[in-house]
Amino acid sequence: MTESGHSGSPAALSPGKQIGILGGGQLARMLAMAALRLGFRVSILDPQHDSPAAELAAEHFIAAYDDMEALEVFARTCSVITYEFENVPAQTAEALANWNVVHPSPKALATSQDRLTEKDFLRGLGIETAPYRAVANETQLREAMNNIGSAGILKTRRLGYDGKGQVIIGPGSDLAPALELIAGQPCIYERLIAFDREISVIAARSANGDFRAYDPAENRHRDGILRESAVPAAITAEITAKAFAATRAIMDALDYVGVIGVEFFVAGDRLLVNEFAPRVHNSGHWTEAACLASQFEQHIRAVAGLPLAATARHSDCLMRNLIGDEINGVARLIEEGDCMLHLYGKAETRPGRKMGHVTWLRHKA
Amino acid sequence: MTESGHSGSPAALSPGKQIGILGGGQLARMLAMAALRLGFRVSILDPQHDSPAAELAAEHFIAAYDDMEALEVFARTCSVITYEFENVPAQTAEALANWNVVHPSPKALATSQDRLTEKDFLRGLGIETAPYRAVANETQLREAMNNIGSAGILKTRRLGYDGKGQVIIGPGSDLAPALELIAGQPCIYERLIAFDREISVIAARSANGDFRAYDPAENRHRDGILRESAVPAAITAEITAKAFAATRAIMDALDYVGVIGVEFFVAGDRLLVNEFAPRVHNSGHWTEAACLASQFEQHIRAVAGLPLAATARHSDCLMRNLIGDEINGVARLIEEGDCMLHLYGKAETRPGRKMGHVTWLRHKA
Repeated sequence: MTESGHSGSPAALSPGKQIGILGGGQLARMLAMAALRLGFRVSILDPQHDSPAAELAAEHFIAAYDDMEALEVFARTCSVITYEFENVPAQTAEALANWNVVHPSPKALATSQDRLTEKDFLRGLGIETAPYRAVANETQLREAMNNIGSAGILKTRRLGYDGKGQVIIGPGSDLAPALELIAGQPCIYERLIAFDREISVIAARSANGDFRAYDPAENRHRDGILRESAVPAAITAEITAKAFAATRAIMDALDYVGVIGVEFFVAGDRLLVNEFAPRVHNSGHWTEAACLASQFEQHIRAVAGLPLAATARHSDCLMRNLIGDEINGVARLIEEGDCMLHLYGKAETRPGRKMGHVTWLRHKA
Repeated sequence: MTESGHSGSPAALSPGKQIGILGGGQLARMLAMAALRLGFRVSILDPQHDSPAAELAAEHFIAAYDDMEALEVFARTCSVITYEFENVPAQTAEALANWNVVHPSPKALATSQDRLTEKDFLRGLGIETAPYRAVANETQLREAMNNIGSAGILKTRRLGYDGKGQVIIGPGSDLAPALELIAGQPCIYERLIAFDREISVIAARSANGDFRAYDPAENRHRDGILRESAVPAAITAEITAKAFAATRAIMDALDYVGVIGVEFFVAGDRLLVNEFAPRVHNSGHWTEAACLASQFEQHIRAVAGLPLAATARHSDCLMRNLIGDEINGVARLIEEGDCMLHLYGKAETRPGRKMGHVTWLRHKA
């Protein structure tokens, strides 16, 4: 999907300029590779000494995300700042924005990092979500279950990912784990949606409003962690169009620059947004194998002010994450042939840790 | 083209192991990206402080190629050694081979870095080349011109590249530039071939003899520098088969491990080898855009003992080098769409310097 927005492209960064990435995990590593291929240099700020992106960085700040002195040097020595994770503290984002351009905008960050703010924002745009209620105590939880249904998911408003910070509740469930979650921090209760499938849209928006989306991927999770993304998704053209329109509405409302990942539930002909991440997204890793420009290059292009790339896909594909000790099966995997392997260079294998991914291609029918 | 050789694959390097690359130019940079994507670490040895590959290296030795102390540390801290250029001094290659495994073999290096040895080797395999004579003085030059033709090219036996160290001679030419070349170092005189086109084969061979070749590219030069490679080349299936067979014969004879680039002249139904380079090759850069595994990944797989990747091409393509200030046209280039841009991060633009390349794709007919 390609559409031109209003004209007036800002000046593009010239080769050799430095792009700052907050966070040094595998997403930063893949962003860094794309940036290097476009002739840019990369600066990383991450608290870890041996983060996966460190090897590719021209400059590497080992500092906490609230270390204002380090953040200022980091920000002032780059031409633009971006990030690989959405849980950037608000005061960090604000400080960075004082010192340099930050893409996507701190507003996108603030909206997505609180599930309640995010859902209110989506509803405000007329985008359907699961029914939800803010829940801060047992009374509110019971009210929410009465009002929107006794089968639901309680999630922390902040800092949940890969299934962490979530409790599924069914009729007659023991509420103890839920109450423990609420005791820790404010939560949101969402009705459990009986969906047919989960899809995601990876899209980019440039500073002049150009919008480009890759074809939706169909995602399968295991233990709350993304296991596989298949493209194309088994959805109708109407659902695809609706998903692109919702994604674009979100990006336009946030004056978004960069790549976004929006997760949807498909239930019959209904489409609900589950959540969005203001960054490159695990369910878009297949773009590296099946498209001329990956989501990582697309994000770098957007934040650097370069024209967005085409999102056409030359092959159908299936991406699978290599989680924990699945990395040990790698030699066998790559013997099978038509696949692209990507490992993240993580020194330590831990259960549930994303160690790499593999994408199998098949020619389009 | 895929064929299995004898069995008995050596142990594959496991993720996290370090691959040493001698030389830190753009070829090393692209090899390093491929190595990182497969989960390896990279160590670079290069005399330059700011070589293009340095940013991607976990270790970077700034040292001359004959600095034996640095070479020994470099060699002993890696799991395998490879190189990005063929003009590695013989004693350097021998020393490295004493300390570690070097791929491709020092024999491949020695054979390819002297044009006379190379041509004798090719003839010994029954592979056709242009008629040639070793030439060390004016008498030998005149004899060679009398014997094999007065239209020819005089080349230094060693250290020529991108058209450097070459003089074209026609009937009645002023021989002064040729005599100046001979005065400097031993040369080889080759008959000028009236060819229809130049092609190259990029192929890989693994330690257990597996052989895989990408489709031949058709190459166009300008001022002695590769300008464009187009795939497919306008050649018959017979010529392709002959080119693959010659490439495989060369690799088998050298017990070659890694990627090779073999340049051919096509003249009617005749196929002559011009020269080969024991490394990844500029005319194979298109593989990054049109294949699941690039020549860079293929080379890393071979030297790391991983299975070779498929060489199938999902699209036809045209690769063009960005030479000197052509890099300034980059923003316009990438607006055109269906192309992949790759810049080498070189700080200084100089006339004739390869600054990057761009590959346009078109769907296969």
